[in-house]
Amino acid sequence: MSQLADVGVTGLAVMGLNLARNLARHGHKVAVHNRTYTRTEKFLADHGEEGTFVASESLEDFVASLERPRVAIVMVKAGMGTDAVIDALAELMEPGDIIVDTGNAHFPDTIRREHALRERGIHFVGCGVSGGEEGALNGPSIMPGGTVESYERLGPMLESISAHVDGVPCCTHVGPDGAGHFVKMVHNGIEYADMQLIAEAYDLLRKGLGATPAEIGEIFAEWNTGDLESYLIEITADVLAHTDPETGQAFVDIVQDQAEQKGTGRWTVQNGLDLGVPITGIAEATFARSLSGSLPQREAGRRALPAKTAAWEVTDREGFIDDVRRALYASKVVAYSQGFDQIAAASVEYDWNIDRGAMARIWRGGCIIRARFLDRITEAYEREPDLALLLADPYFTDAVSDGLEAWRRVVAGAAQNGVPTPAFSSSLAYYDGVRSERLPAALIQAQRDFFGAHTYRRTDREGSFHTLWSGDRSEIAG
Amino acid sequence: MSQLADVGVTGLAVMGLNLARNLARHGHKVAVHNRTYTRTEKFLADHGEEGTFVASESLEDFVASLERPRVAIVMVKAGMGTDAVIDALAELMEPGDIIVDTGNAHFPDTIRREHALRERGIHFVGCGVSGGEEGALNGPSIMPGGTVESYERLGPMLESISAHVDGVPCCTHVGPDGAGHFVKMVHNGIEYADMQLIAEAYDLLRKGLGATPAEIGEIFAEWNTGDLESYLIEITADVLAHTDPETGQAFVDIVQDQAEQKGTGRWTVQNGLDLGVPITGIAEATFARSLSGSLPQREAGRRALPAKTAAWEVTDREGFIDDVRRALYASKVVAYSQGFDQIAAASVEYDWNIDRGAMARIWRGGCIIRARFLDRITEAYEREPDLALLLADPYFTDAVSDGLEAWRRVVAGAAQNGVPTPAFSSSLAYYDGVRSERLPAALIQAQRDFFGAHTYRRTDREGSFHTLWSGDRSEIAG
Repeated sequence: MSQLADVGVTGLAVMGLNLARNLARHGHKVAVHNRTYTRTEKFLADHGEEGTFVASESLEDFVASLERPRVAIVMVKAGMGTDAVIDALAELMEPGDIIVDTGNAHFPDTIRREHALRERGIHFVGCGVSGGEEGALNGPSIMPGGTVESYERLGPMLESISAHVDGVPCCTHVGPDGAGHFVKMVHNGIEYADMQLIAEAYDLLRKGLGATPAEIGEIFAEWNTGDLESYLIEITADVLAHTDPETGQAFVDIVQDQAEQKGTGRWTVQNGLDLGVPITGIAEATFARSLSGSLPQREAGRRALPAKTAAWEVTDREGFIDDVRRALYASKVVAYSQGFDQIAAASVEYDWNIDRGAMARIWRGGCIIRARFLDRITEAYEREPDLALLLADPYFTDAVSDGLEAWRRVVAGAAQNGVPTPAFSSSLAYYDGVRSERLPAALIQAQRDFFGAHTYRRTDREGSFHTLWSGDRSEIAG
Repeated sequence: MSQLADVGVTGLAVMGLNLARNLARHGHKVAVHNRTYTRTEKFLADHGEEGTFVASESLEDFVASLERPRVAIVMVKAGMGTDAVIDALAELMEPGDIIVDTGNAHFPDTIRREHALRERGIHFVGCGVSGGEEGALNGPSIMPGGTVESYERLGPMLESISAHVDGVPCCTHVGPDGAGHFVKMVHNGIEYADMQLIAEAYDLLRKGLGATPAEIGEIFAEWNTGDLESYLIEITADVLAHTDPETGQAFVDIVQDQAEQKGTGRWTVQNGLDLGVPITGIAEATFARSLSGSLPQREAGRRALPAKTAAWEVTDREGFIDDVRRALYASKVVAYSQGFDQIAAASVEYDWNIDRGAMARIWRGGCIIRARFLDRITEAYEREPDLALLLADPYFTDAVSDGLEAWRRVVAGAAQNGVPTPAFSSSLAYYDGVRSERLPAALIQAQRDFFGAHTYRRTDREGSFHTLWSGDRSEIAG
């Protein structure tokens, strides 16, 4: 019987450690390695009984302990010497071997690394993993990129340890080189939008109804039984129900109102700008976190700026709750529609051929944005694989349309009553923009022609034109 | 008498050509050079009489024709071989000489180039120039970065050819290395926001009042006599008054409603994300242009998505016009406040020590966003050089506060009536966010602690904490 391991994991901080345990529990023989061996020893002491592990002190022994073609999973914190670890591994490997990076790498780095290792015959798989520590151990959503060939070796193993929904694994081959990390990045961007929308819904209920966090927690728990059913709604209900043990206050009220970020939301928006895809929901969510941490500005704003509104007094409590629920759902559909648009644009730009329906499917379990409504997205792309706009799928058109008047009331009410709802408002503006027969962009293009001779196209015939604005204002070909 | 030139310009496309003419008209002896000499010959034939020019066929002769320390202005299209031209020039120059890049370079490139040339003792000045062809000829707004020493040689010359307002030149030393191109970039970002806000105001007047473009042009012309007085409002009035000579229709109606962009708006937002400065007005404006060009999405959206609103029928015409004017002014103040915030953050991040009041001063003439209200910005930073939030300057607080109820009515009305106003809405959301006592970001931070153990800070004491969400929900130090 071979003593060689099916797969190796190097980097035994909590994420790598949990992935290794998950793999072992599913019957895979797992080689383990860590830069400092004491951590490996502790791992074996704590979890050695959970499966078959082959521990190595040196990277050389680690690689030697792997069955060919070798699969080595690198789980080091993104940026922290990832290149050094990959290079060291590659030195020890042979053509046909596979290096899997499960950190949160930025997809251009993954493209670069994949191309460099491909030259040496080694498969590099940039692999998004969502679900945090818990997911890594019990079934994450897994988004591997790289070659089809590497997925043949890797896929069954990753699918075995991923979350499953209705018996279907939350793991699939996303596409070449950086596709896996790209999709994970957009996943995180959508997560930013989703969380911001939930936060705005909470704020509206609090300020509109004067409800307590616990009461709002109950509303969220109720919402979690319907279309909005999702992990984030569920934990929001939990968080809002929680009382700070120390002060007896609502927990959310003792938490400082500054939301931090680790960069994937920012990357998503920066890429949306590069691709020219208007992902306004994710942008507003990312900037809302920045604003929350802009302390000198907030201090100055709080002191100087009046609200000029009376306290908001909603009279129809149930109607208002239902309006906010519908507005939240509609805004959420817009955020997802924008995110899937970005995946489509990137798929064309980088030649990845990503199946958007499959992405929604593998997000149904294991990850932070897992939600009932992802089934609706998968169905939409099954109906129409080249769907230009998720919002225009009949299911979503109806869903949003049903809530449209409520959405308008909520956004208008927030503006009238001084409640900041950047993501709700921006999503509605996108909806009204994308359905507009004509946009005032025509005026902008005309201004550009006026001051910069940037030319314009006409609605009535082909070509590019310029008006002689400082001359006789006749038109010439541009 | 020396035959040597005071300054040289290489690159005689329209911008370089106009800069050279402008320099010559102000009494400077100007060396001129172009890659293809026929263009130089044509330049001399067309404009040789306007001043004293020294033409060279080779770059060697061009450099040799310059008085020491030499000043060579490079005006080639950004990205198009800029590095090659700069390198070739630098090869021929001596320590103490100055290379000025007046193209729209991205500021990180400028920083890189400045550092590389500094090693060789050559001053590299990344210099923003705004005002288009017309400005280059008759007085642009000029934003030079680089060393103080280079500005001593260069400043008087650039100030002489810049626009002047109340006798004050629209040119000043911005700060080290990339500072000049950075400020020019933010200028352009603000320009995007300003144009989008104007476009939304136009759209509101059109849809709210059913007014014709010509009627709206009159409204803009009227606005241009008050607080909103600016170049962009002025040309908007002109554009809206213009009739297409071919069809007799309003010109704006025959222009395709797709606004193009050349990248500086995108760069500005990407940098805002890097710095963590919420420049939501510029972001929405940039994405609005992207949306206008998203043809498959718009086609799908137009077909599928209902408005669910009746036609907007505003009854109080004058009141509505005044509301839109006030909303436009307030939103504009927010966009500028955000842009100046970004300059402040970059100034700290890159150690540039930029005087924000001086930036507003040099934008008063020559450039696209020249406006009466820039005087108010200069005054605000004169009152309080470290002002944390432009909105919190008493003048702006009052100005926005006076229009606040109107702003709320307009944003609410747009949401209710299906008119997309992403920049108006986003600016109001920012206003309400930055003045909020508490933001729902606390809930986001709590969610992050729940699913990712990202920890939180408390409102009542120092430290970082984590709640054992899947345990007994007690709190531990994080």
